[in-house]
Amino acid sequence: MWPKSRRSNPKFLRDFTGEGQSLLQTTVDRLNPMADEVLVVTGDVHASAVQDQVPACAVLTEPSPKDSMPAVALGAAVLRRRYPLEDLVVGSFAADHVITNTENFAAALETALAQAREGDVVTIGIPPTHGATAYGYIRPGAELTPGVRRVEAFVEKPDAGTAAQYVASGHLWNAGMYVARASVLLEALERFHPELAEGVAAVAEAWDTPRRREVLERVWPTLEAVSIDHAIAEPLALAGGVAVIRADLGWSDVGDWDAIATIHSDGEPDSVTVLGEEDRALVIDSPGALVAPHDKQVVVVGIPGAIVIESDDAILVTTRDRAQGVKAAVEELAELRADLL
Amino acid sequence: MWPKSRRSNPKFLRDFTGEGQSLLQTTVDRLNPMADEVLVVTGDVHASAVQDQVPACAVLTEPSPKDSMPAVALGAAVLRRRYPLEDLVVGSFAADHVITNTENFAAALETALAQAREGDVVTIGIPPTHGATAYGYIRPGAELTPGVRRVEAFVEKPDAGTAAQYVASGHLWNAGMYVARASVLLEALERFHPELAEGVAAVAEAWDTPRRREVLERVWPTLEAVSIDHAIAEPLALAGGVAVIRADLGWSDVGDWDAIATIHSDGEPDSVTVLGEEDRALVIDSPGALVAPHDKQVVVVGIPGAIVIESDDAILVTTRDRAQGVKAAVEELAELRADLL
Repeated sequence: MWPKSRRSNPKFLRDFTGEGQSLLQTTVDRLNPMADEVLVVTGDVHASAVQDQVPACAVLTEPSPKDSMPAVALGAAVLRRRYPLEDLVVGSFAADHVITNTENFAAALETALAQAREGDVVTIGIPPTHGATAYGYIRPGAELTPGVRRVEAFVEKPDAGTAAQYVASGHLWNAGMYVARASVLLEALERFHPELAEGVAAVAEAWDTPRRREVLERVWPTLEAVSIDHAIAEPLALAGGVAVIRADLGWSDVGDWDAIATIHSDGEPDSVTVLGEEDRALVIDSPGALVAPHDKQVVVVGIPGAIVIESDDAILVTTRDRAQGVKAAVEELAELRADLL
Repeated sequence: MWPKSRRSNPKFLRDFTGEGQSLLQTTVDRLNPMADEVLVVTGDVHASAVQDQVPACAVLTEPSPKDSMPAVALGAAVLRRRYPLEDLVVGSFAADHVITNTENFAAALETALAQAREGDVVTIGIPPTHGATAYGYIRPGAELTPGVRRVEAFVEKPDAGTAAQYVASGHLWNAGMYVARASVLLEALERFHPELAEGVAAVAEAWDTPRRREVLERVWPTLEAVSIDHAIAEPLALAGGVAVIRADLGWSDVGDWDAIATIHSDGEPDSVTVLGEEDRALVIDSPGALVAPHDKQVVVVGIPGAIVIESDDAILVTTRDRAQGVKAAVEELAELRADLL
């Protein structure tokens, strides 16, 4: 999402939907009505920015990135110590995804919580709108209760042909949302990754004590970096321990500017989206364009699907069908201007 | 040429060729080796900017725009008073055109000067590269001396079909360049527009006296606004008094950003042009693009023929085949932000 998103100012801290709050804040707001506590796990460098944006949340900081499993397990372990209830249910959600259908999300989460209390790890699967090759897929099996199915398997990001088969056969997109009893989650980790479980337990034990820093600095660097999908969801699914709820959430992982344009277009592909001050963009003969002016007047003439994003120090110009190429362009830019990453 | 060119900072004051000087300065430099004096006629509001850019030139200021004939006649009349020579030759050239082949220009001008001394009004005609509908055309007649022909007629901007016929039959583009003895020019004006001639004579007589301001303010507003083409060249051509020199000058009237891209592309339509700091533009998969960064990093991905022009307060994004539409867009912009014109 360059040039709006930078290493020092990542996607989840920014407002991409024009709602006046960041993706993180929207994520927290969506969860708050369903949760006793929303806890954010993030990298050291983002801790103060996160705390500023969501002052009511506890923030756990990781000294270094270790993918999702250590972060989720640490959150679950800390919460379990703070709320020592056998049926404490936790969920993990990415802070940089968009969900436009919040009613469906609330209903799916309600169902997920109930199923999680039964002892399953529960995921919410997204009905695919196309044969995406950028996501993993979920293969649903037998129905457990209305709207809830056993997961037969999680499958890796497919090639285009396989993706089409997945879509045709009712597979769902894996959006990385997991809900489970904290005990179930941590026991699964112990079963499949005992060393990681042990390390996380040590850190969690020290977390609310003066020893936190010392233990964190000693143990965290030794932890295995692994995703929750690989570490728990995949092996547990093969063992019959994962359930899926199919829910159309208007979900997007906001992977590129085309996704932003789609989110804003409300199903009208030719509509023009201006992020920010409307008067700062004049868009002529450019159906489907997405324009984000910053401090200059932007005029776009005759480029269907144009994407023009201005930040304080950069301007990106591309089209929606080339938006996936921005990432490679930014990598090339690193050789010219590393300060702009 | 928005957003680089503005009402308060017009095209001729700016550097569009990347040579480090404005179109005006380049025009003066091109004429200096051939002329005893180069005089600039411009509007009041631009006088000080012009004088700053070309300190060696005399600057005549018009209180209001009256098209080209009054300006050229005033220049000729003032020079004639300063240099009272019967064979004084003057020429008029637009300050905002580009000529890339300066050798051909110098040779054509040399020929024009010689022919002008014979008593003709002489123009330089541009061999068309395509059937442009934006220019008037010159119909050449009998050869007078090698390289010089009588002008049969000047013809108005044609439609596309007529333009194609003109190109096929050897017509030339009228670039508005005229060379003549000052006496011939002013006598022609007296013949075809006696009132205008009288008014210009009165202003010129007062020019180098303390009465300049008073006479200018009284007489100038009464003058007919008319182009030198309509006022003199067209009727005089029908009377057999105009000659033309055909010369391939790499000429452009720099009418839109596509013209700038063509000037810079050196005959390679796929070459990418960066106006300004090369490192401020990263252009990927965009053959033929023209990018002018100002103070931000510009990244363009996947738009063949892209035009991206950044100024201190605006950003224009279009393509070369839509560059002609920028003028209309800027008129639309006037309703939003008149301060940006």
